[in-house]
Amino acid sequence: MPLMLSEPVLRLDEARARRNIARMQARARMAGVVLRPHFKTHQSQTVGRWFREAGIDRITVSSLAMAEYFAADGWDDITLAFPFHPGMTQRADVLAKRLRFGIVLADLDGLGSARFAAPVDLWLKMDVGSRRTGFEAEDLPALTKLIEGLDARPELRLRGLLAHAGHSYAARGVESIAAVEVEAMARLQAWRAELSAAAGRPLELSVGDTPGCAIGQGFEGASELRPGNFVFFDLSQWQIGSCTVDEIAVAMACPIVARHPRRGRLVVHGGAVHFSKDWMELDGQRVFGLGVEANDQGWGALRPELRLVALSQEHGQVEAPPGFIEACRPGEVLHFLPVHSCLTADCMGWLQTLKGRRLPMLKAQAGAG
Amino acid sequence: MPLMLSEPVLRLDEARARRNIARMQARARMAGVVLRPHFKTHQSQTVGRWFREAGIDRITVSSLAMAEYFAADGWDDITLAFPFHPGMTQRADVLAKRLRFGIVLADLDGLGSARFAAPVDLWLKMDVGSRRTGFEAEDLPALTKLIEGLDARPELRLRGLLAHAGHSYAARGVESIAAVEVEAMARLQAWRAELSAAAGRPLELSVGDTPGCAIGQGFEGASELRPGNFVFFDLSQWQIGSCTVDEIAVAMACPIVARHPRRGRLVVHGGAVHFSKDWMELDGQRVFGLGVEANDQGWGALRPELRLVALSQEHGQVEAPPGFIEACRPGEVLHFLPVHSCLTADCMGWLQTLKGRRLPMLKAQAGAG
Repeated sequence: MPLMLSEPVLRLDEARARRNIARMQARARMAGVVLRPHFKTHQSQTVGRWFREAGIDRITVSSLAMAEYFAADGWDDITLAFPFHPGMTQRADVLAKRLRFGIVLADLDGLGSARFAAPVDLWLKMDVGSRRTGFEAEDLPALTKLIEGLDARPELRLRGLLAHAGHSYAARGVESIAAVEVEAMARLQAWRAELSAAAGRPLELSVGDTPGCAIGQGFEGASELRPGNFVFFDLSQWQIGSCTVDEIAVAMACPIVARHPRRGRLVVHGGAVHFSKDWMELDGQRVFGLGVEANDQGWGALRPELRLVALSQEHGQVEAPPGFIEACRPGEVLHFLPVHSCLTADCMGWLQTLKGRRLPMLKAQAGAG
Repeated sequence: MPLMLSEPVLRLDEARARRNIARMQARARMAGVVLRPHFKTHQSQTVGRWFREAGIDRITVSSLAMAEYFAADGWDDITLAFPFHPGMTQRADVLAKRLRFGIVLADLDGLGSARFAAPVDLWLKMDVGSRRTGFEAEDLPALTKLIEGLDARPELRLRGLLAHAGHSYAARGVESIAAVEVEAMARLQAWRAELSAAAGRPLELSVGDTPGCAIGQGFEGASELRPGNFVFFDLSQWQIGSCTVDEIAVAMACPIVARHPRRGRLVVHGGAVHFSKDWMELDGQRVFGLGVEANDQGWGALRPELRLVALSQEHGQVEAPPGFIEACRPGEVLHFLPVHSCLTADCMGWLQTLKGRRLPMLKAQAGAG
């Protein structure tokens, strides 16, 4: 029986997600590095448990709310990989009393006058080229001073340097990704040598963007990897070369609502509040999603001729071949791979497994509280 | 005392929102047209009540979930201004049994084999030039047939033609907006004449985009107006010329997390999951939000030199003058007007009044259910 939906659904292929987790875990083990996956992509306690079943015991998050949400499900070693600022102090302190909690500093005054009643792991955020945030080579003298000052703050346990080579997202293919990674690691190793001297002991390195972790060289010298997107992957990662279409674990199911054969377009229910407005360029065109063939198991091959080319709040406009449009009827469901699964999942707030199980995410939980 | 926040907050100036509602209600009354505001922008039962207090008794929504959410708060005349498809039948029927419910048809086969146990208002979606969806002049013969066929479906009460001149968003200034509106109304009047003849009675016209309703000419001949964004307005509407900065009723409060004076940037907590990735072009630059001066009452004047120029999931990068960056400290809060308040509010899922009252929106409610 064909799928009938009253609204868009973000379908999650559990088998693919579990394979992605197992594969990344195997890569980390082979490289002798601990995997501390970033949970910002799925934001689901249930998906988190799939990681736990694969042997993961420590995680990364990008907000206090996310830390609290996963702490409530028993995670007891969490790094908040977003720059700490004094407004976070109270909630961070509650977390630190309860579990092993790590914070990240990206500004010399980031701690302000924050005081913690429990030990907190401290990471220094280094900019390895993404130019988003983090300390640079010019900051090393000031960081040395900061590290020396930590002697007076025993509750702050300096762990090491943390980086995210976000500029790997502009790379295409294995060699180009490896080049980003090698350069980033070289900078980090040099900075670590200098700052370890100030600390009087070897500092750790925490790294890991999905492209580098998925197809990179192994991040020699790092102690932990923090990729996140790989659990679902998406068209952006496929375009970079980090994954195949078969590894993408989420697809949005959208009912067709109107056909416009004269201009080669379909309209589906699936807009900016479902996909997010993130886009990629494909053949010189702005694309918000690409079709995939639905089947009894979920979905299969890419249908790159079905392109989401415009989104408003609820409407998605799909460019499609005339013959395809002719054969469609309103209410039939099309599947699309998202451009950026982190933002798509965050917009939706819930996921649905292929067996029809509804998995609430952080946002839904927050509303219940 | 300066505002301290542990996470971004979307602040809502209730007085501004109530003024925007009152002004639009007054414009509709002057024009002798009923205001059926679109609730997709605020998606909050509390804000909905402000409309009710201003005399509004019928509303527009863009999804079944939104219809159900506002029905639960006592709204009993709701139009779902999104193309109906057969997958919606069951939930629509439940609504139709409970209240006066209107649906919109944008495809000749949109109803499929849908049957309703209660009367449903039916609107024909017409494309007046936005090219998103709706029937066009070429469809008039088929629409005439469809209307004739409705004689056998007494539960479907054909109300008239419904349009959204979304291409007014590309207009700039009063004259240009009025030109879009005049042309759209001329088309609609001609189509109504032809289709009213088929129906054997005069059909209604339901129109209304925020630019046209806020500063347009009055939509002569329309029976109802359906603007939505005007309750909050935003930078897009300001750029179009539909509102002043003082009328924008929401601002995102974002803690500063890192300073990068060497490259003229600040990093704030405020990313794609807060603002959405919608952007506007300003001076040839892609902008996701502009600063406003915070004050004890909320916020005031625009600070166009503070520009959100890049967003990742949680980070917002702000271009700012060197002197401003020097004076900033992590944890201090900056306010930004959003580019597209509908998507920003939807991303956030809740609003906070200037008095600190937290207003949950549909998404938070959905999670609780």
